[in-house]
Amino acid sequence: MVEKKALKPKKEIELKDLTICDATQQMLAKARRDGVETQFDRAAGMKACPIGADSACCKHCFMGPCRLNAKDPYGKVGVCGANIDAIQARNFGRMVATGTACHNDHGMAMLDIFRDVVQGKIKDYRIKDVNKLVSISKEIGIETEDRSVQDIAMDLYHELEKTYTQVEGELPFAKRVPPKTLEMWRKHGIVPRGAMREIMEMMSRTHIGMDQDHTNLIKQICRTALADGWGGSMVATEISDILFGTPSPVSVEVNMGVLKEDHVNVIVHGHEPNLFESMLASVNAPSLLESANEAGAKGINLVGMCCSGAEVMSRHGIPHAGNFSSTEPILVTGAVDAMAVDVQCIQQGLVKVAECYETELITTNPRCHLEGATHIELDEHNPQKCTDEIVIRAISRFKNRKFPVEIPKKVGIGVHGFSHEYINYMLGGSFRASYTPLNENIINGRIRGVAGVVGCTNPRVKQDYVHVELVRELIKNDVLVVQTGCSQIALAKAGLTSPEAAALAGPGLAEVCETVGMPPVLGLGSCVDNTRILIACSEMVRTGGLGDSIADLPVAGAAPEYMSEKAIAIGQYFVASGVYTVFGVTFPVTKGTNFEKLLFEGLEEMGMGKWGFNPDPHEMARMMIAHIDKKRQALGIDKARERVLMDMSDRRDIDAA
Amino acid sequence: MVEKKALKPKKEIELKDLTICDATQQMLAKARRDGVETQFDRAAGMKACPIGADSACCKHCFMGPCRLNAKDPYGKVGVCGANIDAIQARNFGRMVATGTACHNDHGMAMLDIFRDVVQGKIKDYRIKDVNKLVSISKEIGIETEDRSVQDIAMDLYHELEKTYTQVEGELPFAKRVPPKTLEMWRKHGIVPRGAMREIMEMMSRTHIGMDQDHTNLIKQICRTALADGWGGSMVATEISDILFGTPSPVSVEVNMGVLKEDHVNVIVHGHEPNLFESMLASVNAPSLLESANEAGAKGINLVGMCCSGAEVMSRHGIPHAGNFSSTEPILVTGAVDAMAVDVQCIQQGLVKVAECYETELITTNPRCHLEGATHIELDEHNPQKCTDEIVIRAISRFKNRKFPVEIPKKVGIGVHGFSHEYINYMLGGSFRASYTPLNENIINGRIRGVAGVVGCTNPRVKQDYVHVELVRELIKNDVLVVQTGCSQIALAKAGLTSPEAAALAGPGLAEVCETVGMPPVLGLGSCVDNTRILIACSEMVRTGGLGDSIADLPVAGAAPEYMSEKAIAIGQYFVASGVYTVFGVTFPVTKGTNFEKLLFEGLEEMGMGKWGFNPDPHEMARMMIAHIDKKRQALGIDKARERVLMDMSDRRDIDAA
Repeated sequence: MVEKKALKPKKEIELKDLTICDATQQMLAKARRDGVETQFDRAAGMKACPIGADSACCKHCFMGPCRLNAKDPYGKVGVCGANIDAIQARNFGRMVATGTACHNDHGMAMLDIFRDVVQGKIKDYRIKDVNKLVSISKEIGIETEDRSVQDIAMDLYHELEKTYTQVEGELPFAKRVPPKTLEMWRKHGIVPRGAMREIMEMMSRTHIGMDQDHTNLIKQICRTALADGWGGSMVATEISDILFGTPSPVSVEVNMGVLKEDHVNVIVHGHEPNLFESMLASVNAPSLLESANEAGAKGINLVGMCCSGAEVMSRHGIPHAGNFSSTEPILVTGAVDAMAVDVQCIQQGLVKVAECYETELITTNPRCHLEGATHIELDEHNPQKCTDEIVIRAISRFKNRKFPVEIPKKVGIGVHGFSHEYINYMLGGSFRASYTPLNENIINGRIRGVAGVVGCTNPRVKQDYVHVELVRELIKNDVLVVQTGCSQIALAKAGLTSPEAAALAGPGLAEVCETVGMPPVLGLGSCVDNTRILIACSEMVRTGGLGDSIADLPVAGAAPEYMSEKAIAIGQYFVASGVYTVFGVTFPVTKGTNFEKLLFEGLEEMGMGKWGFNPDPHEMARMMIAHIDKKRQALGIDKARERVLMDMSDRRDIDAA
Repeated sequence: MVEKKALKPKKEIELKDLTICDATQQMLAKARRDGVETQFDRAAGMKACPIGADSACCKHCFMGPCRLNAKDPYGKVGVCGANIDAIQARNFGRMVATGTACHNDHGMAMLDIFRDVVQGKIKDYRIKDVNKLVSISKEIGIETEDRSVQDIAMDLYHELEKTYTQVEGELPFAKRVPPKTLEMWRKHGIVPRGAMREIMEMMSRTHIGMDQDHTNLIKQICRTALADGWGGSMVATEISDILFGTPSPVSVEVNMGVLKEDHVNVIVHGHEPNLFESMLASVNAPSLLESANEAGAKGINLVGMCCSGAEVMSRHGIPHAGNFSSTEPILVTGAVDAMAVDVQCIQQGLVKVAECYETELITTNPRCHLEGATHIELDEHNPQKCTDEIVIRAISRFKNRKFPVEIPKKVGIGVHGFSHEYINYMLGGSFRASYTPLNENIINGRIRGVAGVVGCTNPRVKQDYVHVELVRELIKNDVLVVQTGCSQIALAKAGLTSPEAAALAGPGLAEVCETVGMPPVLGLGSCVDNTRILIACSEMVRTGGLGDSIADLPVAGAAPEYMSEKAIAIGQYFVASGVYTVFGVTFPVTKGTNFEKLLFEGLEEMGMGKWGFNPDPHEMARMMIAHIDKKRQALGIDKARERVLMDMSDRRDIDAA
């Protein structure tokens, strides 16, 4: 039975202040009745350390930990003499190093699988998108004419391996960077060599008595972050597409209502696609379906959560049950028979909630165990051994369900799976697949600009609220929104990923959406898939008319409810690539310091993008739109609205002719 | 003139409670008169964060920073649900990753220089120790018969590069590990692949929602640390020996009295030998000597500090001016005309002190800038450009000295430079160079065991005091002490590195020392040179009679006044290699937790060494001696003292014969 321990007497926050997700609200209410604690309760009971939140503390050596005073940041220094700027830059550098490490760890795992698939050592997966294999190989200078797929693939493997292992030179995907952007990086000495080297150097430089000049540290911070965006993350995305298929738009159900009371419900949560792909095979295995039927289930219902779900849903139309902050609440349904997890954003809090409902919580990756969870390791050379076992356990739990099941009847339907390749096709049409129509619509002002709205959810702010409000405001102002990860799921639940949402867009954007039949909010995938946005930006530059570097584009990014160090790494690689990037929740710098100024102004002066911060979605939208307008002005297209109609009427004339 | 700002009214600590180093005390008194602040003042004015000190806080994501209660460590979890063990293990893992990154960054820099020397691209350095080049190459399986030095060297370069870049397999120096120790590592899956991969994986696994099982995290912690000791640090030591010469014992002057009032005084402080080697050339350049004379100086006096000094002093007999905590006080002499620094343990606090006395403080490494210091980058392809410029600036500062110079008249003379190769020769004699005599003396009980006493100084404890007291107690109990880094300098200042110090040793150890003519305290070099201790331990195992693995040896280690994350990495690689390692000052775990138990007991049960903690030198000595005795007992040599005399009389008979 559910453990009925009394909740500590806290001032109880109203559920509607915790989340705008009805399903999550309903489950939080049930959790309270059941005496089950979630991250929302823990956040309410945990006062964030104010000094740590301002990045005004340092525990990088044992003369400390030192705490400076955020109200008088230059009034004091650490025991070693490090001032607030050195301390903050080092803290920030470690965040970037960690996020970059995560994405490169993920990318390297994908590349290892790719190699073993190419060499025939892994038989459960295969190269699904040969076109993409060939086109990427060409892009980075691999000979593809008259060569076998396997030969090209092995060359691609060896070339991309340099992303991690190379210690000198420029990482392979630097070849995809717009020349002026690359030139700016070279000027500052921030073109990544290899991701592992950058991470190691970042860590080395944040040791006591190493780099204590924030203007020098920032260079390594940029270089490390770029080894994420143009390194590990990009390899992860591209290899996943090659192996499992490049997404194209598909209608997907999102929210807890995708659980089925009369089915064995299996959730996959985490970040790598391989667990999910193998689980898909397992839930369709006739013998397991038969077992499920014998246990009284009408079938096995596989659903995704978090980025595992966001990456895979568009490849297979698999429903998605919710984002990060819903991973505990969904267990409260009692309907989840197994939750299989791999890496990243797997909260240890899941263990207790799963225990309360006797849900099988199973870790599968050697690098991510949870104390108290069952570990069944996934070996990619025989992955179904693991996933079959998980399904068997799920069936057994279904058979012995001891709890009244309560599934929120909430489901949003939206279209997802807009790879950068598809955007190409979608706007250009099959005849003239290119980014020209996008650029033209930006130049003519119908689309004011493009915003990437991405990132986590965080119990420190009302779940989904900042995402949804921000995006609504952006599209209302004719800003096309591209999305990934937990943010995309927030908008999907809110119904903004359907073509009908065009009605909520401003007149220009609405017209484009209606013409093309696309939603004003394009879901691109998981958080590693943010690299699709980098490529889309590069394509926009290459297509012409919007400046010579990514920094010239009328685009902006936001992570309104972020919570992870990965998000900081992602934000930093967007900034270093040239994108104005606004974060919500909180920002790990002390106000009024030089390091803050460097992030929020100085980087732009160096030719990059810059950071912004505002927890309020409307302010955030205002800042992003102002930036987009600034860029439009610099491009001389700020008065484009007038020109637009003429251009379009011209084109209509042509079309009519 | 010296900036005369009033010191904040703090409760003034008596200088004798801050340090037992008379010279440093004298300078701290002057600093107070001059209104100059040092780390001792900053430590007194900075209350260490108690939660951070217990490693009970986590700022790995932005749902926090979370703070648990060290008094009730299991009463609360972080917002993500991470418990105290996950939090501590992650914090500890990042410390180890940082330390490992530092040493590998250093090692990789040395290896790059080595390659360029071999390829003739760097002409200022050359291969000095061909014997060592050949013997190391042989050890790791490189063919050396009938091959040119250059060919062997290039093969060695390529093989050792794997230390960093390799992503699978076992790093090259795993071949030097005693088989039973290696077997234990393999069993636990902790043989390092390549250092960069281990660091990246360690960082990835400490991200929010990654590894949250301290028993799983500890494996990556060990693997990462071993990639320091048997990886980057070992490469740094061995390549430095090959390029600049393997140390052999030489008498060196240590302490601030090595400064010369009538000379241009140049200090080199940091960790890499190349800056020092080039500086040596510059201070001997006739044109610069002439300039110095013209400026009224009797010469140019080059002295080392910290590990730069500890590594180089024995190669060239260059005096050493003091350890970490004296790097600010020495500037207070007013006699330092330039301090050139490279990497690690370069406090930002130096900037202000240098400013007060108009000392030229010059950073030379691209990875270590100090806000407010002058940066003159050292390019190894033309290193004297940098070092000449520094000397020129020093001469100019000498000429314009504005301050009364006060040099403490303190100098200790000791013998340093006991490489593991030399220990071999020293004890074995030129006829039968081997570790057999050492092992025999341990077996017969004359030497009770060997202790490595190493590590930093830390203003949180009385400088040098814990080092000196601990070592005195150890040698009194017939424990031979080997030393590196700032600890070695503490003992040198206290006079314990001279052969005469044998008088302070117990009867057995004293007899050995007097026979051989060696001190009871052997200085091995800088902190990367701790790997000499690993090799010495391996040699002891290989020689026989003291067990099959490093964990069997009657040895122990200590870092009584450590302050850096590098020290934690070093401690962890000793523990994972099989050595009981006791730290002083403070220990970053919460009492009574499972993670503490794992470090202090569990690792030993896994076949490794274990951690110990005690801030009191006498308690520390007691713990180490008890461990040594435990190991002697396990080896069946605990009653060896009786056997000793017979063995020795036997041998004397033989000698007499």
